Amino acid sequence: MSDADGLRALGSARTDYHLDRPDAGLLEAFPNPRPGAAWVVGLDCPEFTSLCPVTGQPDFGRLLIDYVPDGRCVESKSLKLYLFSYRNHGAFHEACVNGVADDLVGLLAPVALRVRGDFNPRGGIAIRPLALRFAEGDPARRREALELFEHYDRWR
Amino acid sequence: MSDADGLRALGSARTDYHLDRPDAGLLEAFPNPRPGAAWVVGLDCPEFTSLCPVTGQPDFGRLLIDYVPDGRCVESKSLKLYLFSYRNHGAFHEACVNGVADDLVGLLAPVALRVRGDFNPRGGIAIRPLALRFAEGDPARRREALELFEHYDRWR
Amino acid sequence: MSDADGLRALGSARTDYHLDRPDAGLLEAFPNPRPGAAWVVGLDCPEFTSLCPVTGQPDFGRLLIDYVPDGRCVESKSLKLYLFSYRNHGAFHEACVNGVADDLVGLLAPVALRVRGDFNPRGGIAIRPLALRFAEGDPARRREALELFEHYDRWR
Amino acid sequence: MSDADGLRALGSARTDYHLDRPDAGLLEAFPNPRPGAAWVVGLDCPEFTSLCPVTGQPDFGRLLIDYVPDGRCVESKSLKLYLFSYRNHGAFHEACVNGVADDLVGLLAPVALRVRGDFNPRGGIAIRPLALRFAEGDPARRREALELFEHYDRWR
Amino acid sequence: MSDADGLRALGSARTDYHLDRPDAGLLEAFPNPRPGAAWVVGLDCPEFTSLCPVTGQPDFGRLLIDYVPDGRCVESKSLKLYLFSYRNHGAFHEACVNGVADDLVGLLAPVALRVRGDFNPRGGIAIRPLALRFAEGDPARRREALELFEHYDRWR
Amino acid sequence: MSDADGLRALGSARTDYHLDRPDAGLLEAFPNPRPGAAWVVGLDCPEFTSLCPVTGQPDFGRLLIDYVPDGRCVESKSLKLYLFSYRNHGAFHEACVNGVADDLVGLLAPVALRVRGDFNPRGGIAIRPLALRFAEGDPARRREALELFEHYDRWR
Amino acid sequence: MSDADGLRALGSARTDYHLDRPDAGLLEAFPNPRPGAAWVVGLDCPEFTSLCPVTGQPDFGRLLIDYVPDGRCVESKSLKLYLFSYRNHGAFHEACVNGVADDLVGLLAPVALRVRGDFNPRGGIAIRPLALRFAEGDPARRREALELFEHYDRWR
Amino acid sequence: MSDADGLRALGSARTDYHLDRPDAGLLEAFPNPRPGAAWVVGLDCPEFTSLCPVTGQPDFGRLLIDYVPDGRCVESKSLKLYLFSYRNHGAFHEACVNGVADDLVGLLAPVALRVRGDFNPRGGIAIRPLALRFAEGDPARRREALELFEHYDRWR
Amino acid sequence: MSDADGLRALGSARTDYHLDRPDAGLLEAFPNPRPGAAWVVGLDCPEFTSLCPVTGQPDFGRLLIDYVPDGRCVESKSLKLYLFSYRNHGAFHEACVNGVADDLVGLLAPVALRVRGDFNPRGGIAIRPLALRFAEGDPARRREALELFEHYDRWR
Amino acid sequence: MSDADGLRALGSARTDYHLDRPDAGLLEAFPNPRPGAAWVVGLDCPEFTSLCPVTGQPDFGRLLIDYVPDGRCVESKSLKLYLFSYRNHGAFHEACVNGVADDLVGLLAPVALRVRGDFNPRGGIAIRPLALRFAEGDPARRREALELFEHYDRWR
Ligand SMILES: [Ca+2]
Ligand SMILES: [Ca+2]
Ligand SMILES: [Ca+2]
Ligand SMILES: [Ca+2]
Ligand SMILES: [Ca+2]
Ligand SMILES: [Ca+2]
Ligand SMILES: [Ca+2]
Ligand SMILES: [Ca+2]
Ligand SMILES: [Ca+2]
Ligand SMILES: [Ca+2]
Ligand SMILES: [Ca+2]
Ligand SMILES: [Ca+2]
Ligand SMILES: [Ca+2]
Ligand SMILES: [Ca+2]
Ligand SMILES: [Ca+2]
Ligand SMILES: [Ca+2]
Repeated sequence: MSDADGLRALGSARTDYHLDRPDAGLLEAFPNPRPGAAWVVGLDCPEFTSLCPVTGQPDFGRLLIDYVPDGRCVESKSLKLYLFSYRNHGAFHEACVNGVADDLVGLLAPVALRVRGDFNPRGGIAIRPLALRFAEGDPARRREALELFEHYDRWR
Repeated sequence: MSDADGLRALGSARTDYHLDRPDAGLLEAFPNPRPGAAWVVGLDCPEFTSLCPVTGQPDFGRLLIDYVPDGRCVESKSLKLYLFSYRNHGAFHEACVNGVADDLVGLLAPVALRVRGDFNPRGGIAIRPLALRFAEGDPARRREALELFEHYDRWR
Repeated sequence: MSDADGLRALGSARTDYHLDRPDAGLLEAFPNPRPGAAWVVGLDCPEFTSLCPVTGQPDFGRLLIDYVPDGRCVESKSLKLYLFSYRNHGAFHEACVNGVADDLVGLLAPVALRVRGDFNPRGGIAIRPLALRFAEGDPARRREALELFEHYDRWR
Repeated sequence: MSDADGLRALGSARTDYHLDRPDAGLLEAFPNPRPGAAWVVGLDCPEFTSLCPVTGQPDFGRLLIDYVPDGRCVESKSLKLYLFSYRNHGAFHEACVNGVADDLVGLLAPVALRVRGDFNPRGGIAIRPLALRFAEGDPARRREALELFEHYDRWR
Repeated sequence: MSDADGLRALGSARTDYHLDRPDAGLLEAFPNPRPGAAWVVGLDCPEFTSLCPVTGQPDFGRLLIDYVPDGRCVESKSLKLYLFSYRNHGAFHEACVNGVADDLVGLLAPVALRVRGDFNPRGGIAIRPLALRFAEGDPARRREALELFEHYDRWR
Repeated sequence: MSDADGLRALGSARTDYHLDRPDAGLLEAFPNPRPGAAWVVGLDCPEFTSLCPVTGQPDFGRLLIDYVPDGRCVESKSLKLYLFSYRNHGAFHEACVNGVADDLVGLLAPVALRVRGDFNPRGGIAIRPLALRFAEGDPARRREALELFEHYDRWR
Repeated sequence: MSDADGLRALGSARTDYHLDRPDAGLLEAFPNPRPGAAWVVGLDCPEFTSLCPVTGQPDFGRLLIDYVPDGRCVESKSLKLYLFSYRNHGAFHEACVNGVADDLVGLLAPVALRVRGDFNPRGGIAIRPLALRFAEGDPARRREALELFEHYDRWR
Repeated sequence: MSDADGLRALGSARTDYHLDRPDAGLLEAFPNPRPGAAWVVGLDCPEFTSLCPVTGQPDFGRLLIDYVPDGRCVESKSLKLYLFSYRNHGAFHEACVNGVADDLVGLLAPVALRVRGDFNPRGGIAIRPLALRFAEGDPARRREALELFEHYDRWR
Repeated sequence: MSDADGLRALGSARTDYHLDRPDAGLLEAFPNPRPGAAWVVGLDCPEFTSLCPVTGQPDFGRLLIDYVPDGRCVESKSLKLYLFSYRNHGAFHEACVNGVADDLVGLLAPVALRVRGDFNPRGGIAIRPLALRFAEGDPARRREALELFEHYDRWR
Repeated sequence: MSDADGLRALGSARTDYHLDRPDAGLLEAFPNPRPGAAWVVGLDCPEFTSLCPVTGQPDFGRLLIDYVPDGRCVESKSLKLYLFSYRNHGAFHEACVNGVADDLVGLLAPVALRVRGDFNPRGGIAIRPLALRFAEGDPARRREALELFEHYDRWR
């Protein structure tokens, strides 16, 4: 499949895991299979874990990453490796969610992208950041992306 | 029932299953029972399975197909046979969802059609594409279709 | 209760059930208790059953009937008898949902009416038609009805 | 607490229950703690029961009462006593829901008020009326109330 | 992490709990990690308890606090201590929800902030206030905040 | 149907409801359709309501009545009327559950009978009595009844 | 497949439905694939409907049929046709559940068989009969069957 | 009601709450309404809160208290006041659950009593103690109590 | 890890899938990590699919495989490949469940093994076989295995 | 609180986390608050994570640890630190569950202890080991422990 050529992670024999600090270089993309069509995709990543930057205690949560692709789509095995690279990294939940959003915008230059973090409670309180990114200019494509997110949210 | 005449799949004695590559020729339609009325229909297909195009491993998911009919409706037994024809076919989830959307638009020329794919996780990550298609021109019918999808989504 | 006078079904001693073909004559109405007030009512009918028009196999589903009344409301016991009259009748789901909508519009001349059918799967696929009817003219009353449906849907 | 002065029901030694016909006189209010602020409150009353006006059979349901206060808020123990006063009273569900709405509008003169009734099924059919009331005039306050209801409904 | 400097509560050795009256002085903030980016955060606090101002009986509920940050974010351990300071304080639910909203607006001067209280039933009735606060002026930032709340609510 | 002869309640034209004190005379039975066979039946009565004997406040709960029949079965419409006769009667939950058990043992002389009451909370505490009755003598039939209850409980 | 030879219903071209009175002649069996092995099978039939013998009103419920096979297993399409033959037949729930048990014991002569009926409420009360049948003699096989039912019930 | 005489808490005008250390003196009982009958009762107390004995941080949990009465039953409003008396008391969960069990055994001298505590997680770990107490001697009554607990547990 | 030596499937570069007929040769085992200790393990395989032997239509279900190991444990990636080998194979559900049980007993010679199949409904009826296998002789080890299954079932 | 003296982890100022290999030395105990009483405690640890010993990929799961204490109870903060010490350690699920069981038996010498691991699926298959440990000798205490586990399991 031509779209799958050039992918290092998927189907590779050996996978070595970088677990100590976020590494956007692990991310890989493949061409949008239907450029120009109106479609959106969500990625549900229930196994996100990092460390509290002050106490060092492990934190656990679920990340939901949704985007309206322009030219590229993120390959999910490479996304898995990238998210694992937060495992032994210290950062506040708010910073993690915005950081993942920025790294993916850097990779995909999508029409629109959203990252939601649902973290387990600490001290009885659960923290849930949601970050939203839009491509600059072109208000018509922004409206279409918002409409696609609404269709997606009314489903998931 | 005149609407049911000409249907090969439903009620036929022998059903032979094509399982190796998607075959839009398996799709059949019957006339819209209430052309001109404002109505939408959703088809819930929880038994969709295909193969990963790179590793060959079977993938499993649920497809939700919703459309606002113009002249034709898809007959559900023929849809079942068409979806089974992905069983031993290799394709990324994003491509499957957009492919099913394009084949059904070819059959029905609907006012609007939406396909949502909810695939089981691989490597802890679940991928959920959603494709949206509208008939060209006629913004008034597009608005009515969006309103019908909103009624549908507030229910299902 | 003056509103209940003239109702044959509710409170009647003998009830004989017509089970063979839909009979809109079974439907009865009583006056809107608060004409002019903004209110909507939903009727949840989980025990709908009819026959497949081609194979004769019984089908089962749930009907949700919501309407913004104008002058009349449907009396629920007569609605029950009317829905039972589909028991041994053959029709596609799409036709049933639109048929019930048309019969109730005939009885009530409501501001707006909606019928949703959630049918059990056959061959692994579940079919869910949704029909929408508005009284002609008066766009202001149509907007108010849509707003009431939105309040209703955000609840149920 | 000055707001609580003048309340008869809450904290009173003896409570005698009127169970035979709705008595709006039982309702009491206290001053809005934050007049001018944008806030809405919902009251969930799962233990509503009255009698069928034709057959005399007890009916059971849940009432959801939401309103955007202007000058006054309803005291919940007095609301409980008022709702108990429907216990041995005969009325159609549609009439009960609109009646409760009118009595509370009489007490509170709210910016906006909504009553939703979710009644147990009879003869397999469940009836769910929803009534909506707005203070006259002032479209700006009506829009703000609708927005508050939307925030509330996206939560509950 | 510079953002965490100056925080007294998080990571401190000894924590002494003020349980008798709400004390906004317990609240602490840290700088917004992505000022200018479009993001919203929700804090789920299921362990809120205070006393009924009239009867003295303990009340229990869940507070949901969502805000679109401007310059500052609330540090969650300090929020925990602040909420515990309601433990032996008497106040109506409506007053608590609006009080928490005002104290947090005082700390954060956010673009928009919302507090929702879901209190356990008393006398069979549950009370659920929702308070909404917007920064003055700048209708464009208010619209963006409403859009972020809508994304958040379609998720949580 | 010979079994249905002699039943006053089911199918009768007029039903008058006794609502003020429990009246076991309202209960009716029909012959066991398969005497000697091993079978058990459960009756789920979610609409039980009575009054607190001290404060007069209405209480609400669900009764589950399960029995292994000997010669007779309780007719469900007559059971409905009997349970409604507690509506305006004052009694502790523990007394109601044991009272219903004794009245049904009086009617049916069953091999074994169990009544479970799941009452809504008051003051945050929910009370759930469970009463168990066995026919005197015949330990073999008691063991078979216990086995049937176990099959039933592993299901419901 | 030799086991499937001689089956009329499964795979047949034309299926004609008998809907008026229970007809055990519709039932078919195929040989136990692993005679002598310890295994049990459950059949979940959520679409059972019959008529009330007194009022003629349709009743709806779910049947759960579990048995430990000896020599024969019931073919599920023939079971479907047999259950449909109750559609327009009048019988009390208790009689239906015991009747299905007796007809299947007639067909299969199983080691043990159980039928559970979960019927929708009428007049607010739901009736749930459970019938149990054992092959005569051989207490050792009865104990093994009970153990298999226990394994099954701890799962379903 | 003679059984209710002598109860101070239920129906009393003024209720003053002791919130600082457990006070078994707050507990009251009323006579077993059916001494000699086989029955068990469960009390569901979802609003239990105390303090961590080391850090002073409030803890929250649900207590389930089930017992087979001999001569006396615990009055639920007095139980509520007794449980509130843990509010500002420091104790490990294990000690609280065993302490409540011992105090209630002191009040009731029941045939058997069980206390289960389901506490909210701290540091991601939830602690759930279960304490069991039996009256001394009389193995037959102990077996009957265990059987009643099993019936109760197969329900709740 | 010595236990992992000799495993072909797990960690291998290339995986080729056999999809046409069940192949027990695909199964691999590793040594029991705690021989002699009392422990049981369950494997939840929600993605099982095969073909109807008569109509050729794909069937879908979930297999639950639980066993008390003696000397060997099944390696889960090899189990995955073995279950995929049923993909294009025709067999009745009853035969599949017993076949998987026999193949795994052949691989593991376990103390006890159980296979449960939960298949999607066809024609409205769902079929759920459960197969149980015990090592010959040694009634003490059989009792211990049954006790472990009971602990497992009270959990899952 | 004398019971809390000598505990290093709970209430300590600085907590340093060992994340690389399981370290039973991190575990701490406090005296059983009611030695001789019949009670059991469960610890729910939903945030367990370790690495696959062959591929190095992070695995995630929930551990349920239940035990009947003899002289000592495990302090939950020290348990948290001990479980975190598996974070970057490679081991099969079966080995982890048995390892945690052995380490806790070493610390507590309990009457009985059980560890259940519910791990997220890999390759579509979820693995769930359950390990059971009993103190040697004293069959009476083993029976009492099994009875306590049964009470616990019928609850959780
Ligand atoms: Ca771009
Ligand atoms: Ca939706
Ligand atoms: Ca067209
Ligand atoms: Ca909805
Ligand atoms: Ca809602
Ligand atoms: Ca006003
Ligand atoms: Ca708006
Ligand atoms: Ca929401
Ligand atoms: Ca959503
Ligand atoms: Ca049960
Ligand atoms: Ca069960
Ligand atoms: Ca289970
Ligand atoms: Ca006694
Ligand atoms: Ca062996
Ligand atoms: Ca359990
Ligand atoms: Ca239970």
